Order: sequence, then C-alpha cells, then structure tokens
Amino acid sequence: MMNERAIADAYRHKRVLVTGGLGFIGSNLVLALVEAQAEVTILDALIREHGGDMYNVAAVRDKVSIEVADASDPGVLTPLIKGQHYIFHLAGQMSHGDSMRNPELDLRVNCAATMRLVEACRAHNPSAILLNTSTRQVYGRPKYLPVNEDHPIDPVDVNGINKLAAEYYHVLYNRVYDLKSVVLRLTNTYGPRQQISNDRQGVAGIFIYRAMKGLPLKLFGGGDQLRDFNYVDDVVRAMLIAAVTPQCYGRVFNLGSDRAYSLLDYCAILKKLCNVEYEAVPFPEDKKLIDIGDYYGSYERFRRITDWSPRVDLDEGLRLSVEFFDEHRDRYLA
Amino acid sequence: MMNERAIADAYRHKRVLVTGGLGFIGSNLVLALVEAQAEVTILDALIREHGGDMYNVAAVRDKVSIEVADASDPGVLTPLIKGQHYIFHLAGQMSHGDSMRNPELDLRVNCAATMRLVEACRAHNPSAILLNTSTRQVYGRPKYLPVNEDHPIDPVDVNGINKLAAEYYHVLYNRVYDLKSVVLRLTNTYGPRQQISNDRQGVAGIFIYRAMKGLPLKLFGGGDQLRDFNYVDDVVRAMLIAAVTPQCYGRVFNLGSDRAYSLLDYCAILKKLCNVEYEAVPFPEDKKLIDIGDYYGSYERFRRITDWSPRVDLDEGLRLSVEFFDEHRDRYLA
Repeated sequence: MMNERAIADAYRHKRVLVTGGLGFIGSNLVLALVEAQAEVTILDALIREHGGDMYNVAAVRDKVSIEVADASDPGVLTPLIKGQHYIFHLAGQMSHGDSMRNPELDLRVNCAATMRLVEACRAHNPSAILLNTSTRQVYGRPKYLPVNEDHPIDPVDVNGINKLAAEYYHVLYNRVYDLKSVVLRLTNTYGPRQQISNDRQGVAGIFIYRAMKGLPLKLFGGGDQLRDFNYVDDVVRAMLIAAVTPQCYGRVFNLGSDRAYSLLDYCAILKKLCNVEYEAVPFPEDKKLIDIGDYYGSYERFRRITDWSPRVDLDEGLRLSVEFFDEHRDRYLA
Repeated sequence: MMNERAIADAYRHKRVLVTGGLGFIGSNLVLALVEAQAEVTILDALIREHGGDMYNVAAVRDKVSIEVADASDPGVLTPLIKGQHYIFHLAGQMSHGDSMRNPELDLRVNCAATMRLVEACRAHNPSAILLNTSTRQVYGRPKYLPVNEDHPIDPVDVNGINKLAAEYYHVLYNRVYDLKSVVLRLTNTYGPRQQISNDRQGVAGIFIYRAMKGLPLKLFGGGDQLRDFNYVDDVVRAMLIAAVTPQCYGRVFNLGSDRAYSLLDYCAILKKLCNVEYEAVPFPEDKKLIDIGDYYGSYERFRRITDWSPRVDLDEGLRLSVEFFDEHRDRYLA
C-alpha cells in the first residue's frame, strides 16, 4: 500500500543494480530509480537483439554507472553485486522464436545467469533484495481463465523452461538461504523504449512499429485471441513496490490488467491513432506450434498484498507510446 | 502389456546408447540390454562421485562399446547419437547435497546436457526413441499422498530444479518436433551396483553399506518418515517397457511401489539380514532444509498403459542386494 512518496523514499540514496538496464523495461526502471535518487549501476551485455541500447538511458547517462558485460559470464556478477541494496534482474532474452532456434544461448542467459546471480548473492551479499522478472509463458496454453499463480505450469518453448528454472532458483534460495527475492511474471508489456522494430519483444511492439510506419498489420489466426497488456510504467511501479514489500519475498506473482483485449481490439486502437490497415491471416506453421490461444491473467494475489493495480489503460498507453516513438522516430522507427 | 520375450524382441540387434551406463541404474540397464542382444554403446564420464565404475559392467565388457566422456561437453553427444535406435539418458548427478554445494555443476550435467541431447536428436537423429530418468524430488514436500503426476511441482533443491527443466525439454521436443521421448520419475531405487559407500545415491544405499559393515544406522528425524522403494531390476524393466510403448511418448510417469515403508521398517529388514543396530536421531540443520517429510507415489498412470508393476518387494530386494554386495565385498564395501 505504498504511494509514490513512500516508494521514492525506499530507494533514495540506496545502491541498486539493474541487470538488463539498457533494455526496454530495464531502462524504464533505471529512469524511475534515478528519479527516486537511487545510486544506480547498470549491467547490460548491450546485445541489440535483446533490446540493449545506450540511447534508452541517454537522459540519465551521467547519473548512472554502466557496466557492459554478460551477466551469464562466470565472474561478472560477483564484484557487481557486492554492496548493492537492491538487485533487479532483467537481463536475458525473451524471444520465444530465438529460444527455439538457439536453446543453448537461452539456457545460458536466462537460466545459468540467474543461478549464478542467486549463488553470488548467497555467497557475497545475502542481505540484498532481489527481484526477478519472469513471464506468463511458463503457464503454456491456459486451462482456465484468468490464469492465476495456481495454474499448472506447462512451458511451450525453451524460453519458458529456462525462465521457469530461473524462478525456482529464486524461490529455492529464499527458502533455503533466506535470500530476499521476489519473482514477477510479466504479461505483454509495451511502451516507450521497447524494441519495436521486430517481434522479439512480442506482438504488442511490432504492431506499434508497423502501424507507425504505415505498414498493414497481420493478425495470425483470426485476431480474436485475448491478451492482457501492461503499460511499462505500471510494470516498473509494480517492481519497485514488490522489492520493498517483505510479504512478497520468496513468492511468485502475476502482473496483469483489468481487461483483456482481442488482438483485433488492439489493432482498432492503433488504427485510431495511426490510421493503419489490418487483416486476419492463417497461422504460419512454425508459429502455430508455440501458440497458446487466449491468455489473460489474474494479478489479484499481488494486488491483495501491495494494492498495486495498473493505472494506464490500453488506449492511453498506446497513445503515450506512439507519442514517444514519434518524438524519437529516428531511433526506434529506423 | 509386454512379457519378457516381447521386451527382448524389441531390443534384439537394435543400437542403444546408454548415457551414464557405468553408473548404478545405467549398468543394470546395460546388462539387461546385452542379455536382450542389443548393440550397446555406453557414454559415461566415469566420475566416481556420480557412481561411474567400469567394474559395474565387467561381466559384459567385451560386448559393449564404451565412450568415456562428459555428455554435457558440447560436441560429445552428436557423433554418438547418430544411428542409435534407442537412447537412455541416465548420465547426471543425483546428490541433493552436492547440487546445493555446486549448483554450477548440477546445472551443467543435469540440465544443459539434457538440452544438448534433445537438440542433437532433433538435428541428427529425429527418429530415435529417448528415455529420460527424472526424480520424485521435483514434487518437493508432498501436499497429498500418494503423489501422482498431477501433484504440484515444487523442487526443494537445485537438483530438483535442473531435473525438472530436463523433463520439460523432453516433453517440449516431443510436442514441437515429435521426438519420441518419455520421462520416468524414479523414487528410491536400490540394488546391486549401487554406490552405497556414501549417501549420494540416497539413504537406501548408505544404510545397506553401514549395515553390512556392522556400523550402526542413524535415522534422522525419528525414522517414521514413509518412503517407497524400487528394486533396480523393476526400474530397468520399467525403462525397457516405456521406451517401446508409443502411448508413453511425450509424457512423464512416476514409478513407485505398492507399499510404503517407514525408515524404521527399512532398518528392521536390514537388522534381520545383517543384525545391525539402529537409532533415531534429530535432523542436522543442513539436512532439515531439504527434507520433504513422508513421500510415496502412485505409479497407476504408468501401470494402466504398460501393465508394469514392481515384482520384487523390499524384503526380497534387500536380501538380493546384500547377497550381491557380499559377493563383491572388496569392490563395493571397501
């Protein structure tokens, strides 16, 4: 039950490490932390395909410390985690397709890196507070809706398997070593600084890109699949709250929104904003295999503890996103 | 519903790779496969702590091909899996304590190696039949008994996390690439060729060792914890059946037995056989953390499909085990 003031107070002059801090969600988190006067260190491998981009933090470049390295390289994490009060672990890759094409890489950056992080914290900074971002993809094809945290686990791609293992590492190290760690399962997050020029960060982003470029949108499988969307500012606020809420430690929570939209709804909003055309097309074979049908989650468990709920609805969030990308057109729409 | 004859027929003159084939269960499987006239290749890193021992297959040494290498080393698996009809993946480490002390190693040998195996099969031998051994440890502390496959997953140690990820890799590669793969979750397996001189392969083994050495047995936590035990021959038969039963592919099954025994029961049988003393002692702190209380599983799902059920009860199995270890005393009781 924290207001903006209390959140900011919790981070003021605190040392915070953000892995993946040059990426989409990571950079938005960094901006919020700098605003709260935290002392921020960014660890990022600066891999373009994973969303890393120095430009994302250009506005606060002189107020943060940036380490360009791969969190999954042995030895990288230990010196960086020492002395940190908070560690937000967002580094990794989130493309489902890439994880199937290169499972070796996905295992390394999503699973092994996380194991090394909790292990380094256990050994060298056991009082640090950790937040790990995971994905609704661990549930696979929903057996009921909305999906809550008790829903059976059934990852439908390599990314889901490795992110799940990463979650378990956090929970285990809380249980066994009392590490203060919380896991948030994110659903479709969108907004400023998202890498929208490809579909690696999900359909929400690439649709914004195509709409703003005047390219027609293709809705695989009819477009009536339901999804829930979170504007990135809401996700950042959830992370900041979760990390300072002791009742969250050792637990896994869904984020989510109060309304599910079909992809057709989503495109209709983009059409209002960008006047784009869209059409439904059949599923290509390779995507059909990892399609999960309708998905929307319940964030009730997280809300009950923290009072968090999203504030920015999809109309407003897409308007803000289009506005941002229009202003930084040469950077994100090139 | 296969009798011994039909099982043997299925493997005669077939090429079979057994990873971990110099270990406890692996070597027993190798002996059964040689008996069935299969052409067996063993891949084993020959790590003493993981149970690897050339002596385990001494009786068939000239009838099998042995490759000493680590399945988790990139490049090792690809040449070996080519042309195999069956691949039994038993390599790995199963010590819960070791996995907590060295999570890096556990991740490599249990999770990464499995990912590399299914990936190599997808690319180079997609028609091979795979069997993967997992562990009841993925369930964690039982929420109900007997534990069936619908029981929630909640690994209580690093080993459980990595074995779980390995399971998901097998299931995923079946679903997406149609790899013929089956996963068996083993419970406490015991019997000839087990590494009994330490507790890495479970309490069943070290108790046999101590009983045969005349050393008193210590029952942590009172000894009334229930467990189910499988004699290794029953486990080997389950594996041989599962791999040739197409209805099993893409699925995960418990093994188990028809009766749960307390550790006190277990010791009482050993006392009859070896006249050993035993006593209940409090849990040491480091073991308490990963203790799971009572556990016994249901193997009903596997039985319905295959008609498998264990044939050797605990009295008989322990008698056979003690007989074997007595005969090979200088090797297993040194």
